[in-house]
Amino acid sequence: MSGRIGKRSIVFDTKPAVLGYAAVVGKKEGEGPLKDRFDRILEDPYNGEESWEKAETSLIRDSFTLACSKAKLSASALDAVYAGDLLNQCVSSAFALKDSGVPYFGLYGACSTMAEALLLASMSVEAGFAASACAVTGSHFCSAERQYRFPLEYGGQRTPSSQWTVTGAGAVILGKGRSGVRVSCATPGRIVDAGITDMSNMGAAMAPAAHDTLKAHFADTGRSSQDYDAIFTGDLGALGHDILEELFREDGTELGVRYMDCGVLIYELRTQEVGAGGSGCGCSASVLAGHILPAMRDGVWKRVLFAATGALLSPTSAQQGSSIPGICHALVLEKED
Amino acid sequence: MSGRIGKRSIVFDTKPAVLGYAAVVGKKEGEGPLKDRFDRILEDPYNGEESWEKAETSLIRDSFTLACSKAKLSASALDAVYAGDLLNQCVSSAFALKDSGVPYFGLYGACSTMAEALLLASMSVEAGFAASACAVTGSHFCSAERQYRFPLEYGGQRTPSSQWTVTGAGAVILGKGRSGVRVSCATPGRIVDAGITDMSNMGAAMAPAAHDTLKAHFADTGRSSQDYDAIFTGDLGALGHDILEELFREDGTELGVRYMDCGVLIYELRTQEVGAGGSGCGCSASVLAGHILPAMRDGVWKRVLFAATGALLSPTSAQQGSSIPGICHALVLEKED
Repeated sequence: MSGRIGKRSIVFDTKPAVLGYAAVVGKKEGEGPLKDRFDRILEDPYNGEESWEKAETSLIRDSFTLACSKAKLSASALDAVYAGDLLNQCVSSAFALKDSGVPYFGLYGACSTMAEALLLASMSVEAGFAASACAVTGSHFCSAERQYRFPLEYGGQRTPSSQWTVTGAGAVILGKGRSGVRVSCATPGRIVDAGITDMSNMGAAMAPAAHDTLKAHFADTGRSSQDYDAIFTGDLGALGHDILEELFREDGTELGVRYMDCGVLIYELRTQEVGAGGSGCGCSASVLAGHILPAMRDGVWKRVLFAATGALLSPTSAQQGSSIPGICHALVLEKED
Repeated sequence: MSGRIGKRSIVFDTKPAVLGYAAVVGKKEGEGPLKDRFDRILEDPYNGEESWEKAETSLIRDSFTLACSKAKLSASALDAVYAGDLLNQCVSSAFALKDSGVPYFGLYGACSTMAEALLLASMSVEAGFAASACAVTGSHFCSAERQYRFPLEYGGQRTPSSQWTVTGAGAVILGKGRSGVRVSCATPGRIVDAGITDMSNMGAAMAPAAHDTLKAHFADTGRSSQDYDAIFTGDLGALGHDILEELFREDGTELGVRYMDCGVLIYELRTQEVGAGGSGCGCSASVLAGHILPAMRDGVWKRVLFAATGALLSPTSAQQGSSIPGICHALVLEKED
């Protein structure tokens, strides 16, 4: 029987199957270590649109359309789409999906959106509320800079702890299936506020939330990090990655080389001038759809823990002196033969 | 068996039960026709906080806490909370719930958030992923004016078609139960874009989405409007209410007096100077928790269709000339003895 396991986790007995996925990224992401992994790399940061916000919309729409086509499903065959983004009022997702005709659930999970969307899509498919459902999200460096930081033209300097918003989108379609990669378990995140107020150090703000969710996951399932071939956090970046390792070390757990962060993987940190690494909804989404799922398909990893992380702040909350609460949702992906 | 019915609807066989609910509203709402229905009416628009955004946060937190207490549940006993709001990056929900310790699913459904949250909470409870779950949302006139329109101090004139953002919040807790009000069915909304670009006429932008969802609901369930004792849209206001009536009239259906709109009910439109009526996430949320659910408990209505509506725009999308896409999620509430 599917249902709850332990205090916070959910087990999926029918294991919703990954039917299709796609990742579309920007030029800089297409020059990074994962450059050969993505479905499409943009030449033009506007992607032929009139504004960065509309470019972000087109990235999300393109990844959605491509994932449907790779799943051999027409969009109209989907019963639900779970989508969100970083823009005010989540307009890039809404405008990307507005003509799809698919029942739409708008989410705001900041950079954890891909995991939140996958979790809800898994629940829908598992319970029979949807025969197939899509999880999709994305972000754009230029629209995020304009909204969260400074006009790009200002050319402001960045602190080394800051992260680079990924221009990219990822879409994953779940449905009933007997083989391939499937979602077997999930641990929804609660909000953790470690009191960090530095908007240029998101890794430090989000790492305690990742620690909270992964610890709960291990306790609920009776598993340890050793039971996974790979563990991915969303976008803690190099600093957050090390903080999470240290938090587990204090618990007596070494995460070891199996632990990786999507924000560290997507760029060459020494040469690409991205501060502590990638961030944004599109970071974990494009690494999942471009790198993790294809590698699982190819047999590189059999069991993966995917734990996207989000910082639940706004420029207004930061200006009003509030701290930066973090969240992390985790899912177990298993390759079945 | 719970699952899908018709093209888009979902039937809940175990019928998640409403265990508790609460509505907290501002002074103006507390002077309207529903003034005796709310759990708490603020005297101070700041609710003792330093900013309107923090006041909005406190409204959401208060309605959540009160609903838990009325359900005789400690917050920590909840397995999930589904929450969202209108503020950029949905900060009022995140900050309201950050210390609750409850697994958190952030949503962005604009003014349809209460229905979206209830739909997802119903799915979680029905499928056994949560023993109990909360749906909560709210809005604040002052924080919305500042973000979407003009500084309040500017004293800008309002067009008669514009709506007044409700200062208020509502929370509903669902779980297993054998009596009282229960959720028996839902029809998730897809995005409908009627091409409206006037930010001061949200009713016209959202009415086609309400028409789309309600028509799908009637087709999927084989029911007509006559099968409901009352039908509520979220915040179409007086103009949107009439547009929806007209759209159904073109289909040969008279919605009649059983059809009401939360944005029309919450204010005295002739005297309270609110344009075409109330809007905002807190509109349908506080009318549901303050008026509809208590009236169902008291036997006024046995079967209600609750259809909250949202406009998926942002100031940026409007400034870039985009139209205003709408969405509407619908749920069937039934009183069992």
